[in-house]
Amino acid sequence: MTLPRLSPLVVEEAVSRALREDFGDAGDITTEATIPADATSMAMIAARKSGAIAGVDLACAAFRLVDPAINVAIEKGDGARVENGDVVLSLKGPSRGILSAERVALNFLGHLSGIATATTALVSAVKGTNSKISCTRKTTPGLRVFEKHAVRCGGGHNHRFGLYDAVMIKDNHIAAAGGIAKALHAARSATGHMVKIEIEVDDLTQLEEALGASADVILLDNMSVDDLKKAVALNNGRAILEASGNVTIDTVRAIAETGVDVISSGWITHSAPSLDLGLDFK
Amino acid sequence: MTLPRLSPLVVEEAVSRALREDFGDAGDITTEATIPADATSMAMIAARKSGAIAGVDLACAAFRLVDPAINVAIEKGDGARVENGDVVLSLKGPSRGILSAERVALNFLGHLSGIATATTALVSAVKGTNSKISCTRKTTPGLRVFEKHAVRCGGGHNHRFGLYDAVMIKDNHIAAAGGIAKALHAARSATGHMVKIEIEVDDLTQLEEALGASADVILLDNMSVDDLKKAVALNNGRAILEASGNVTIDTVRAIAETGVDVISSGWITHSAPSLDLGLDFK
Amino acid sequence: MTLPRLSPLVVEEAVSRALREDFGDAGDITTEATIPADATSMAMIAARKSGAIAGVDLACAAFRLVDPAINVAIEKGDGARVENGDVVLSLKGPSRGILSAERVALNFLGHLSGIATATTALVSAVKGTNSKISCTRKTTPGLRVFEKHAVRCGGGHNHRFGLYDAVMIKDNHIAAAGGIAKALHAARSATGHMVKIEIEVDDLTQLEEALGASADVILLDNMSVDDLKKAVALNNGRAILEASGNVTIDTVRAIAETGVDVISSGWITHSAPSLDLGLDFK
Amino acid sequence: MTLPRLSPLVVEEAVSRALREDFGDAGDITTEATIPADATSMAMIAARKSGAIAGVDLACAAFRLVDPAINVAIEKGDGARVENGDVVLSLKGPSRGILSAERVALNFLGHLSGIATATTALVSAVKGTNSKISCTRKTTPGLRVFEKHAVRCGGGHNHRFGLYDAVMIKDNHIAAAGGIAKALHAARSATGHMVKIEIEVDDLTQLEEALGASADVILLDNMSVDDLKKAVALNNGRAILEASGNVTIDTVRAIAETGVDVISSGWITHSAPSLDLGLDFK
Amino acid sequence: MTLPRLSPLVVEEAVSRALREDFGDAGDITTEATIPADATSMAMIAARKSGAIAGVDLACAAFRLVDPAINVAIEKGDGARVENGDVVLSLKGPSRGILSAERVALNFLGHLSGIATATTALVSAVKGTNSKISCTRKTTPGLRVFEKHAVRCGGGHNHRFGLYDAVMIKDNHIAAAGGIAKALHAARSATGHMVKIEIEVDDLTQLEEALGASADVILLDNMSVDDLKKAVALNNGRAILEASGNVTIDTVRAIAETGVDVISSGWITHSAPSLDLGLDFK
Amino acid sequence: MTLPRLSPLVVEEAVSRALREDFGDAGDITTEATIPADATSMAMIAARKSGAIAGVDLACAAFRLVDPAINVAIEKGDGARVENGDVVLSLKGPSRGILSAERVALNFLGHLSGIATATTALVSAVKGTNSKISCTRKTTPGLRVFEKHAVRCGGGHNHRFGLYDAVMIKDNHIAAAGGIAKALHAARSATGHMVKIEIEVDDLTQLEEALGASADVILLDNMSVDDLKKAVALNNGRAILEASGNVTIDTVRAIAETGVDVISSGWITHSAPSLDLGLDFK
Repeated sequence: MTLPRLSPLVVEEAVSRALREDFGDAGDITTEATIPADATSMAMIAARKSGAIAGVDLACAAFRLVDPAINVAIEKGDGARVENGDVVLSLKGPSRGILSAERVALNFLGHLSGIATATTALVSAVKGTNSKISCTRKTTPGLRVFEKHAVRCGGGHNHRFGLYDAVMIKDNHIAAAGGIAKALHAARSATGHMVKIEIEVDDLTQLEEALGASADVILLDNMSVDDLKKAVALNNGRAILEASGNVTIDTVRAIAETGVDVISSGWITHSAPSLDLGLDFK
Repeated sequence: MTLPRLSPLVVEEAVSRALREDFGDAGDITTEATIPADATSMAMIAARKSGAIAGVDLACAAFRLVDPAINVAIEKGDGARVENGDVVLSLKGPSRGILSAERVALNFLGHLSGIATATTALVSAVKGTNSKISCTRKTTPGLRVFEKHAVRCGGGHNHRFGLYDAVMIKDNHIAAAGGIAKALHAARSATGHMVKIEIEVDDLTQLEEALGASADVILLDNMSVDDLKKAVALNNGRAILEASGNVTIDTVRAIAETGVDVISSGWITHSAPSLDLGLDFK
Repeated sequence: MTLPRLSPLVVEEAVSRALREDFGDAGDITTEATIPADATSMAMIAARKSGAIAGVDLACAAFRLVDPAINVAIEKGDGARVENGDVVLSLKGPSRGILSAERVALNFLGHLSGIATATTALVSAVKGTNSKISCTRKTTPGLRVFEKHAVRCGGGHNHRFGLYDAVMIKDNHIAAAGGIAKALHAARSATGHMVKIEIEVDDLTQLEEALGASADVILLDNMSVDDLKKAVALNNGRAILEASGNVTIDTVRAIAETGVDVISSGWITHSAPSLDLGLDFK
Repeated sequence: MTLPRLSPLVVEEAVSRALREDFGDAGDITTEATIPADATSMAMIAARKSGAIAGVDLACAAFRLVDPAINVAIEKGDGARVENGDVVLSLKGPSRGILSAERVALNFLGHLSGIATATTALVSAVKGTNSKISCTRKTTPGLRVFEKHAVRCGGGHNHRFGLYDAVMIKDNHIAAAGGIAKALHAARSATGHMVKIEIEVDDLTQLEEALGASADVILLDNMSVDDLKKAVALNNGRAILEASGNVTIDTVRAIAETGVDVISSGWITHSAPSLDLGLDFK
Repeated sequence: MTLPRLSPLVVEEAVSRALREDFGDAGDITTEATIPADATSMAMIAARKSGAIAGVDLACAAFRLVDPAINVAIEKGDGARVENGDVVLSLKGPSRGILSAERVALNFLGHLSGIATATTALVSAVKGTNSKISCTRKTTPGLRVFEKHAVRCGGGHNHRFGLYDAVMIKDNHIAAAGGIAKALHAARSATGHMVKIEIEVDDLTQLEEALGASADVILLDNMSVDDLKKAVALNNGRAILEASGNVTIDTVRAIAETGVDVISSGWITHSAPSLDLGLDFK
Repeated sequence: MTLPRLSPLVVEEAVSRALREDFGDAGDITTEATIPADATSMAMIAARKSGAIAGVDLACAAFRLVDPAINVAIEKGDGARVENGDVVLSLKGPSRGILSAERVALNFLGHLSGIATATTALVSAVKGTNSKISCTRKTTPGLRVFEKHAVRCGGGHNHRFGLYDAVMIKDNHIAAAGGIAKALHAARSATGHMVKIEIEVDDLTQLEEALGASADVILLDNMSVDDLKKAVALNNGRAILEASGNVTIDTVRAIAETGVDVISSGWITHSAPSLDLGLDFK
């Protein structure tokens, strides 16, 4: 699978903001006071736990934006699997810049690699089935594009990026529109031909109605494994079927074996613990 | 303890950015297509797990910025403890706005309440000792001020906010400056009289040197409980002592009982799972 | 057809920028010098040619952001058809604010109504066929979301909003990927299940290859009317077919009668003349 | 005539915004999926119609900001006249970057060259007279500085850039100020000695009053060719005379032959069709 | 003389930035900790020295942006003359907001009133002559529009606002262009008919050349009072004459009595001491 | 004493904004019209008065951001003392860029060097005592970090940077909190262990109360020299003592000789006259 890069435009914007947050107006007053301006160092960022890497471009940008004289070599790129001790980045250059950028680089890398690592757990659990693991919009405000990227680094797939790029019709939309068929028709007529339309259903009756109204994707919300199996049979390849609700490392395999196309999880983005990484000077 | 408010200036800035991230250019195409412009609803955000609340101002701002006609009543404010089912916010107003703002509001509230909840666990564990639980700079890029606030909502205290507002001298600074005393002297002469200076030490010998050079705060890094006890005795009330490293819900009580003033944890900000909250229409 | 509203977030951002462009630092030096601060007026914006209206929210925002005391009543909303003399907005309030905001309001309204008007011409020409008129990404930099909205106001439909929300595989992508099937497969595996995939083909052989590889949408580029008819027959309802190239008011009917689903035109956004509107004081 | 450059500060700002509009958060998902990261290409942007070029700096910036490794050679600079087939820019470098930046580059170049081309038509029509062709403030919101530049590329001259850099007294200002002389006096006393003052008049009586009150520039609004001639005679070189209203390619020559100094046209900025340009890979 | 208002757009932008600078991320930690949220106060900003007021809109915006519940009454508006003890603003509302906004409000008001006060000194000194006192571009970066406004509040006039709104040809421009006449001709042909052109001359020979080439305004740089008199005679009302260099409170009267139209001073903006103002609670 | 550098992040932000202010949209219309694009020059910025230099990084950034081809050599860095005629910066490169950036560079350099110079006067006056000269928050809005830096360049020390990085309890805070001890306790419990707490006292009774409640720093406001001496004796090294009020070049020595640790002055930032510097072409 090809892993699309993060656009440099969003990387620079986010890293600049994070550096401003950490530097404030006065900057790194500790480093300026204690480290000579001409000191240089070699250092490395290494994993202290096993996991999957995501966010290398953001970490590189942190060092580059603080001091372009810092040379950064990528030893483990986005998507790589690492063990405790594996070096991710090798650094060489002005000591001040390396120390001042360290925390922002590690905060991005640890947070996103944590998400990638959590994703790999679910992806491994469904190996051999046809189900893809997908994220949701339950992301950390301001970091969605990076968290979606981290999901891909962990072998997962992306759901829509926001309210703007695809239609997702939920229970309240259905109720207000006057039913599943009317809601789907309203969405179809208000959006262009390049927009996919998904609708959430709670049971097999609703599923039939959605299939009759030509939904592109159907979200099977909180259904039992038995019902998921029936839904797959009923669908017979017409729409893409997505299962969500109660997805954990323990339940995901059984859900996948029902034959659904996609299993989505909010947990991999909103609750994945940070991957432990550290910067060491040589 | 007084709980300082978040400045409205930073709240509006962060929520606007999060809304732009979720709305993109095209906006909430699902809601615009399916919900009549004049529909109104009553809804509520409620906890689905027990925990501590943080981020209510951000959730309110999300609804207000999407549509000022949405009336939001705060049922459980920042710092409140909640059980499954407790209502946090009551909402009344245009259905479109409530649905369009829902995810941004929940993403802030779940993320920050997760941090507050994790903090309460450590704070409860040290109850009755003199140790305060403190955060670090290991925060999510772009959200530090809110995560620091969430730590306070959970009963914790804040470490410095960035590189700019206090001095923290670590091993590499000490090495470059030529020793503990020289590093402390360099920091003292380069900063103003309103800046506190902390230095990290690894053992009791370094602690003595730091005390001799009048550090305001001393970080005891990864010391054993035995050494922490000796450090407290040696310090005899001169500097503020902070313990860090290997702080978990299982170890924190023993660390606190050594008599250190502050125990800092990166885990409460970088790895706390989101608190489960949901929005329900009435 | 429902006409989705512009998100207030993007409206305010664009109008603020336009006002800053027109006001510079010194502001409206003419009005400040010649109009008393307490003078009030009634005025109206009226059409001086027939056409379709788009951009009313932007015009209203211009007056409101310059002076919230200006009362603006919408007489003809987005999507309305107007004749010479029809009043679009009625204004009442401080004379200074009305005069200072006038040009920005008219520039938005004239530009977008021009696009809506151009769209209606093509839409009328294909009336009774099953073809929809669609825009492209050939828009004015910085105004795409508004121009796409104007196309909808004129009865047209929207193509993708940018590089980010749908896949469009063109000749160079096909060549680099090693052929139509390989390009489609690469796109499918790199994007999520909510992303539609379109591919551009030049002839019927390519069309067959694209259909075999399950493209969602196929762009028939610069094909003759005869070939378009054959393409429709070959497709037999499998993919959405979009015709582009040489679309003018004279050719569009014949293209539509081939049975293609969508006809896209860059001209309606990049070359539509402004609709003539003026502000008159009563 | 010297052609002042666009300030790099405004170029970078506008192009960054346009790229963010086209890239969104997710970037060019088609190109990332189908083009290998190390592929390089040679390409060129060429005219497909004859016209005048404007906006080359913006097009170059689009490629440079997407990937600094793209080498761009300017074959036809701003102000150049081109025929169908003439190469404007030669490109060499990473294929991904060239494809991703293509649309933004072409949208700027086509829009601005369209304005330059429209301007040349009016400029040619008045050749041999003493009248200059000037633009107005009827420009596309957010792009005024570039459109004013495009007018200069087409041989035209610029009117004021906004409300802030010169005084333009219109009928409503005159009415509120209590007459032409009072309005001119008010403007003179409220502005500094580096500000030019123009006033709009409808007939020869008003013209005499404006001349008596020492206007720097007088706008003769919608006057007949006969009246324009009389105005020129009456003025006798005292003020700069500007004619506006009903300026078309058919009427402009007769207006110019009346001897007015400046003829201003909103059409060249608000309604000029885009110049057809395309990018071709070699 | 009419005193044009500051555009609300620039006021809000500048005050927001200043508040963010003072609040940082954490906000007013002193006030949040010590003042109850529901405490209200009455307070006033009063002059502690005599002078002229400027910047009242900025001070009001500081209070409003921190807390819209603060009621601010303007007792002395921009341009008013005050004595020690005179109340400028009366405040009533939440104590927290008043205290948190105090410093930003006073910093704007003191700085700009200092400039207005310095200007009045020069304006008074030339009273009865025909010379106007003008500012320059020697202003504090980021505050120019407000400092130019303060000059007007003190009875002075404004020179150009930047490099963009008028031409000022200095010695290096003349040398590069090949002489005074050539420089003036180059500027005339490169700029529109709404742009004034000033040229700097050092002696009467250069003055004659500039007059021959129809400069709008001529800067007489560092000339003796005798030469200024000769320049006025030579000019005979043709161009506007501006004297600059060695302008102090002691020299300005003699310069004015030579009959020059404008006397410009950098000192009033770059070196005026702040006017002493304080906020007192009742 | 080490002189911490300004963070490049804040330098670039401030200089970009200043350049945009001076360039507006149209740029340097004089230089573009009169100076050939390929002309190069050598020039220098030199002092025309004696003083202390601050702001060199901002001046360099102004030239670099306008044209990276300008080579700037720093002859006198921040903190250097200069005499009339001393060269501060040597410049070589495109004439256009040097002329266009000149005013922004000089405005920063003159303003900040003026503050550094004013600071040196107070610092010299207290030479040999133990008192440090400190600034306040009475700074120019938007420029505080640079003015604080200029104070350090003049040999002074910095007070807190804003409301956010240290506590300063004044009379109104004390009154609202219910007394000195209560206010100090409230501040201590609401802030973290890295925050210093200062309290303002008016007399020796209050001083004793503040010492009893363990204030870190005590501001002795407007006390007589006699009372300051008593305060120093009473304090006996416990808190840091800061004197403020009526600090002038004439009074500062006597204040310093009382033994206070810090003397703070608003005058050095809000009222220091600009240092006279000029740019000359060779």
